[in-house]
Amino acid sequence: MTAPGLPMTVPAEGLPARVRIHEVGARDGLQNEKTAVPTEVKAEFVRRLADAGLTTIEATSFVHPKWVPQLADAEQLFPRIADLPVDLPVLVPNERGLDRALALGARRVAVFASATESFAKANLNRTVDEALAMFEPVVSRAKAEGVHVRGYLSMCFGDPWEGPVPVPQVVRVCRALVDMGCDELSLGDTIGVATPGHVTALLTALNAADVPTPALGVHFHDTYGQALANTLAALRHGVTTVDASAGGLGGCPYAKSATGNLATEDLVWMLRGLGIDTGVDLGRLVATSVWMADRLGRPSPSRTVRALSHQEQ
Amino acid sequence: MTAPGLPMTVPAEGLPARVRIHEVGARDGLQNEKTAVPTEVKAEFVRRLADAGLTTIEATSFVHPKWVPQLADAEQLFPRIADLPVDLPVLVPNERGLDRALALGARRVAVFASATESFAKANLNRTVDEALAMFEPVVSRAKAEGVHVRGYLSMCFGDPWEGPVPVPQVVRVCRALVDMGCDELSLGDTIGVATPGHVTALLTALNAADVPTPALGVHFHDTYGQALANTLAALRHGVTTVDASAGGLGGCPYAKSATGNLATEDLVWMLRGLGIDTGVDLGRLVATSVWMADRLGRPSPSRTVRALSHQEQ
Repeated sequence: MTAPGLPMTVPAEGLPARVRIHEVGARDGLQNEKTAVPTEVKAEFVRRLADAGLTTIEATSFVHPKWVPQLADAEQLFPRIADLPVDLPVLVPNERGLDRALALGARRVAVFASATESFAKANLNRTVDEALAMFEPVVSRAKAEGVHVRGYLSMCFGDPWEGPVPVPQVVRVCRALVDMGCDELSLGDTIGVATPGHVTALLTALNAADVPTPALGVHFHDTYGQALANTLAALRHGVTTVDASAGGLGGCPYAKSATGNLATEDLVWMLRGLGIDTGVDLGRLVATSVWMADRLGRPSPSRTVRALSHQEQ
Repeated sequence: MTAPGLPMTVPAEGLPARVRIHEVGARDGLQNEKTAVPTEVKAEFVRRLADAGLTTIEATSFVHPKWVPQLADAEQLFPRIADLPVDLPVLVPNERGLDRALALGARRVAVFASATESFAKANLNRTVDEALAMFEPVVSRAKAEGVHVRGYLSMCFGDPWEGPVPVPQVVRVCRALVDMGCDELSLGDTIGVATPGHVTALLTALNAADVPTPALGVHFHDTYGQALANTLAALRHGVTTVDASAGGLGGCPYAKSATGNLATEDLVWMLRGLGIDTGVDLGRLVATSVWMADRLGRPSPSRTVRALSHQEQ
């Protein structure tokens, strides 16, 4: 019995030729580990992800170490990977974080907003508009420095406290982030409740509010197993930036039911099958996630990692 | 924090209004258990599935007990559930199996063919055409009795020994099953390697060979996490019959890498979100899968079952 290491490629109509994967495992994944991963392991992880062909690897977060002690080594980590020929965006929650990132030469930063008041309160201890006001000088200073700015938006589909999130409410915050100067948005389904029609409806409403599809990335969670079907709906709408986490690492520490980032390997399997170019070598990526799973002492939740690493045994 | 027990409903264009779920957990799931489940537990499982709103529940298999000892109690089980107001198809591998099923009053039977020589040999110890010849009298006798016949076709996308399976090879066997009198086909991605473009290409080729979409069901496995995205592609093509297994039970005992039937709960979550009617009460279905997982002594692999039962704790 031979191991099918790759799917058969059969393109489908109406999909993009190329997708840029925004790899979040090193930041979104590792910030949720109970114990901080050693800096040298993080650096090696990012290096292996780059070797596997990922070109956008979110590296770390310049939040206060008190809130995310797992990423308290951002100053030590970033210089170790800065030589890699890939984009290394970093999270910056405020001007202090931006100062730290810029001092290290970061050329891509991301702010982290919420579509709902409940999550803004839980995650940032602010109202939605207070958080936007906090990000405003961060974005304008970054743009003045010629730095690319991504705006994450959490709870775009449902919220654990508020339930379904109305599309116009999400559009309003997206519009504010774009007006502020964000180059790109990442629409987060933080608790994984979205379904494909909801995805298409939000993207359509954003276009109607003059937020163009090339400025939109999607960030799905597999809490209810919907992430890849939602991604397919987004691709059909023309989205070409998809967030994923190697091995399915991570979730969100402030929302109990938010588990399971879309695994990069499951995404690459589908895109490879569809003939959509990502530049990623699936075998190397799986090997990287298996290596990281060994470091973390538990198996990857990615079905593709499980299937392919099982066959390699 | 409240538990989102259902997704927000946002329909998408070009999808069917209603989908019939062909529930395979009691047969495809339980035939893969190492230890046979007691007959009374199977009967209760089927009863609870019917109470949850499933209308087509594959009940058991009339194969020789030597091959599938887990379902050796078909004669004892069927009469205990025959009163349920649902369709209860059963697997029949040959005329002897058909005799046993008809004697108990079964009104829906299914034969189990393979698109590849390797799997036909492994599963049936016959060539593809020898297997078809074996099914021919089964189907014609069933049809003469006015019994509905489903033709399962395994390895429609990839085969663990042969790799990718050419679409024309699958179409040939499908055509033979339809010519023989099968009312419905179930296109099986037994090892889970399919991707959405491949699904659409096969369905399109079948239509071109005069196999109409209403006669086609899809049976996806989540080995690489692709089942729901593939289902979405099939729905877009007009398919309205989708196989799934409550709690994600099962796989295939003769193909090592064939794990993970699409979980009915993950499917229902997506369909409910899309506003596609299934008649299923998701809460009751999750409770049924949690109950069954307790009987089997291990958690359900369904992400939706895990998410919803976690929240219920």
